[in-house]
Amino acid sequence: MILRWGHRPQRDSRLTTHVALTARALGADGIILSDIEDKKIKETINKITQNWGGTFSFTMGIPWRKAVNEWRNEGGVVVHLTAYGENIESSEVLKEIKDSRKDAMVIVGCQKVPGEFFAESVSDFNVAIGNQPHSECASVAVFLYRFLGGKALSMDFPSARVKIIPQKRGKKIISHGRFGRLNSKEI
Amino acid sequence: MILRWGHRPQRDSRLTTHVALTARALGADGIILSDIEDKKIKETINKITQNWGGTFSFTMGIPWRKAVNEWRNEGGVVVHLTAYGENIESSEVLKEIKDSRKDAMVIVGCQKVPGEFFAESVSDFNVAIGNQPHSECASVAVFLYRFLGGKALSMDFPSARVKIIPQKRGKKIISHGRFGRLNSKEI
Repeated sequence: MILRWGHRPQRDSRLTTHVALTARALGADGIILSDIEDKKIKETINKITQNWGGTFSFTMGIPWRKAVNEWRNEGGVVVHLTAYGENIESSEVLKEIKDSRKDAMVIVGCQKVPGEFFAESVSDFNVAIGNQPHSECASVAVFLYRFLGGKALSMDFPSARVKIIPQKRGKKIISHGRFGRLNSKEI
Repeated sequence: MILRWGHRPQRDSRLTTHVALTARALGADGIILSDIEDKKIKETINKITQNWGGTFSFTMGIPWRKAVNEWRNEGGVVVHLTAYGENIESSEVLKEIKDSRKDAMVIVGCQKVPGEFFAESVSDFNVAIGNQPHSECASVAVFLYRFLGGKALSMDFPSARVKIIPQKRGKKIISHGRFGRLNSKEI
């Protein structure tokens, strides 16, 4: 589960959409947009899930503290992604997270997250996808890739209406048209 | 080298900035913003490189065709990242790229790239970081991670004025102050 903190409607609209789509494509089961509602993003993401398949959940408006506490009470660990944390490559942090064998909630903030996010009361691990400034979207991608492995990238999303058939050249899409007809289209 | 195509100043400003910072943090040597100039982004990226070290190059305004042709003439391969391409996990495409032992230029577009990008005259490989819709920023991150390996994430960027010292909790930064003094700051 991804928890996106600090989203500002409009200004962060595209970036948060990218974070959510990345989470879905890299194998996360859902995203929580904490402390705020943004119906437009919810609609966009749910529409993608409807068309492209799978069961990615989109929740919004829950206070971050409540979401974190519930996650921990149910036995999960909380991973805070931050450039200041333990380096995912040069430290043992990823191994420790995996060894815990617990479900992970991944907090993705922005530059100005509350100091509490770093404290034991909130995060079990502070993880840096490199200690250089870059992008929450890239951080989520690399973290999920390392944590879940690459298999999500080639998995079938159940109940998809639209599906890409990978090609060396060009574009090929299969879609379930009206009346359940299967259409294959080179575009 | 990353080639970013289809950037629209203002509308894509943050996303392209994230793509460039991701490219730098994951080990690319530079980015070309093709066909357009955006001085604000150039300034942002160059300032980051100045402060955080390394030699990441930022070039803009070159027509994409010219950049691609020059790259190929100098013996490099061109990798077009697209959800329609060969799946990086389930195909042999990454191995083929690595086996070529050539420098790679990675084209990152947007939804509406010219059809030519898929053709042999432009791309040597069309690569999908999964065949689901997600984010060019995540695609660049995972591609570089797979292509260059994770070592970039823990490498030292030479001549950095600012550097994060990874921590389990909290934030620690070292900076070269005026007169070359070294300051360590817990923030």
